[in-house]
Amino acid sequence: MDYNKESLRLHREWGGKLETIPKMSVNTRDALSVAYTPGVAAACLAIKDDYAESFQLTQRKNTVAVVTDGTAVLGLGDIGAEAAMPVMEGKCALFKAFGNVDAVPICLRTKDADEIVRTIELIAGAFGGINLEDISAPRCFEIEEKLKARLDIPVFHDDQHGTAIVVLAALINALRLTDRTAESAKIVISGSGAAGTAVAKLLRAAGASRVTMTDKNGIVHPEEPWLNDAKRELALWTNPDRIRGSLADALKGADVFIGVSAPGILTPDMVSTMNPRSIVFAMANPVPEIMPDLAAAAGAEIIGTGRSDFPNQINNVLAFPGIFRGALDVRAERITETMKLAAARAIADIAEADRFHILPEAFDSRLAPTVAAAVKREWSKSIGGKITL
Amino acid sequence: MDYNKESLRLHREWGGKLETIPKMSVNTRDALSVAYTPGVAAACLAIKDDYAESFQLTQRKNTVAVVTDGTAVLGLGDIGAEAAMPVMEGKCALFKAFGNVDAVPICLRTKDADEIVRTIELIAGAFGGINLEDISAPRCFEIEEKLKARLDIPVFHDDQHGTAIVVLAALINALRLTDRTAESAKIVISGSGAAGTAVAKLLRAAGASRVTMTDKNGIVHPEEPWLNDAKRELALWTNPDRIRGSLADALKGADVFIGVSAPGILTPDMVSTMNPRSIVFAMANPVPEIMPDLAAAAGAEIIGTGRSDFPNQINNVLAFPGIFRGALDVRAERITETMKLAAARAIADIAEADRFHILPEAFDSRLAPTVAAAVKREWSKSIGGKITL
Repeated sequence: MDYNKESLRLHREWGGKLETIPKMSVNTRDALSVAYTPGVAAACLAIKDDYAESFQLTQRKNTVAVVTDGTAVLGLGDIGAEAAMPVMEGKCALFKAFGNVDAVPICLRTKDADEIVRTIELIAGAFGGINLEDISAPRCFEIEEKLKARLDIPVFHDDQHGTAIVVLAALINALRLTDRTAESAKIVISGSGAAGTAVAKLLRAAGASRVTMTDKNGIVHPEEPWLNDAKRELALWTNPDRIRGSLADALKGADVFIGVSAPGILTPDMVSTMNPRSIVFAMANPVPEIMPDLAAAAGAEIIGTGRSDFPNQINNVLAFPGIFRGALDVRAERITETMKLAAARAIADIAEADRFHILPEAFDSRLAPTVAAAVKREWSKSIGGKITL
Repeated sequence: MDYNKESLRLHREWGGKLETIPKMSVNTRDALSVAYTPGVAAACLAIKDDYAESFQLTQRKNTVAVVTDGTAVLGLGDIGAEAAMPVMEGKCALFKAFGNVDAVPICLRTKDADEIVRTIELIAGAFGGINLEDISAPRCFEIEEKLKARLDIPVFHDDQHGTAIVVLAALINALRLTDRTAESAKIVISGSGAAGTAVAKLLRAAGASRVTMTDKNGIVHPEEPWLNDAKRELALWTNPDRIRGSLADALKGADVFIGVSAPGILTPDMVSTMNPRSIVFAMANPVPEIMPDLAAAAGAEIIGTGRSDFPNQINNVLAFPGIFRGALDVRAERITETMKLAAARAIADIAEADRFHILPEAFDSRLAPTVAAAVKREWSKSIGGKITL
């Protein structure tokens, strides 16, 4: 199938991928009087008296905003607010289909970080969570941090944390299958933007201590002149051997390659310098850092990509519906590191875990409930077990 | 039925009144590949190349935002963003049920007019229209005017224009039934806020020349010291006899009372000083300016209220679903005065038009299509007939 052509045709036919439908009939006077005026005043006043009621009496109970500024959409880059909408609507469709989470796409016509923060803060009263999407680095870090500090609902940049959770899930099984541990494995992350940074941080939280980052300029090292603030921070705790040079230099003797970077940049020669039974996650989309057959021929034992037409698809949809499902169910105020770790382990546990099935299928119906349960358990622990699950 | 109690119980059971559902299945790889990545990129690029495609390929085609700042909610006043949500969700439910318009509730956590304008401007790329709701006067005027100037989609403050359209529709039939004309009838509007001002302006556009406005301080007159800027402007073209005094003074010899003000302020004595066969629209909610039986006893021939338990309910739901249905269908960039006038005439024409049925039933299935058709016709005329209807 020519997905592009068919997709464009269907987008024209659909005229928007989402519908907003009432849960109740409003087609009689009595029905109108309870769903709308005059009865609705009782719900309004209950919330006015007790803000917490907004999470029980309105869509905040089950609705997240999927917010972008259109600056880092798919592999297309900065295409603007309106052009980002089809992706946001698709994301919202997945939220509902996989997590029964109602999701509303919001595209912002600004690239100013402070204005983005303020706008989201102003609209947050209608939502139970904020899923940030396709916002370019390093602005995405600042935006997320500021929002986390100001809002009492979960703020989750999926390109960072969704990716990190699913990569960790895949890595847990890949390490196990190749008799490695997170602590001892030498891991190279190609790409030091939003996704790469979040992967590095979550791997650290999972116990990985030998992580080296690269980007298009080479290995992230404290003395490189091209580091921005975000990468300078990464340089402080990655690259334990303090090596300088290129991706090829970083990969010599490495156990794991994690690519969230650019098509074709990983050569078979580089793979052949990695340790035996190496793990290669080449997640650039739609063309990976290396094609799976080439990676296998060069010695990689476990190979994952972002694509559905190869084994081991590493796809955020394994995580975000369950993450928000769980967070909304317990009215979690944020997504903590332990919640992310638990989600990754839950995903890993569902997989069959042979070298071609290190992750579950996206359509596995156990996925969202299992991830949600893990997230709820961790949130409950974090607040002293005060929630009955 | 105790609407308040039942409404609160149901709001708790519903946990939000809206659901956001995908129009397509995303439960197979192929389906995912066209609704989401990789196929969705084609729709994104089509919009990037041609902004107008955003109205064909995304939810902008059929989705409006229902936006409030929570400052003038029902008769409850300034209750804040979150507490306003149940009303906004209800409004969205009506949009879908009566106009098949998808509507998304947005509550803003600010009362600053410029910030409200800027926030709506920033999120407008996701929507095909903006329905402003329950924003207090006089801020609502400034907010609407600025948004109209900045956006290329309809901006419609329903408390103003929806009310005005339905009042005009009711008045058209009431005047006809009592052998009057808009031009010659002496009309008194009690309440000079958002609704009253919009009613006055639309009546003027419909030919009414003898309109006098009052508010809690008395008759709006250019020399009154209590006028704000908005009322000073009203004073320039209303009150043709330049009378000063109270509501009672204004009503002597009047043909029509239109109340968008406060419970019980119209006394039987005042009604008895109006002309014979008078028209009384007492729309304060939930308690009208005068109860219908008292108004009838004092000589009013045609009586309307905002309530569903009396004849002649004057209710915005007769207008807004059809207005936006029509505007979205023709991608109208604004709602013009002639579109509002045409909508009012369309509503009036559907009614049976005896003194107890000056308006159609809210549930009349002809309503939204007929209003939409009128709106489309007028928009087409306004752009030189370039749309085939």
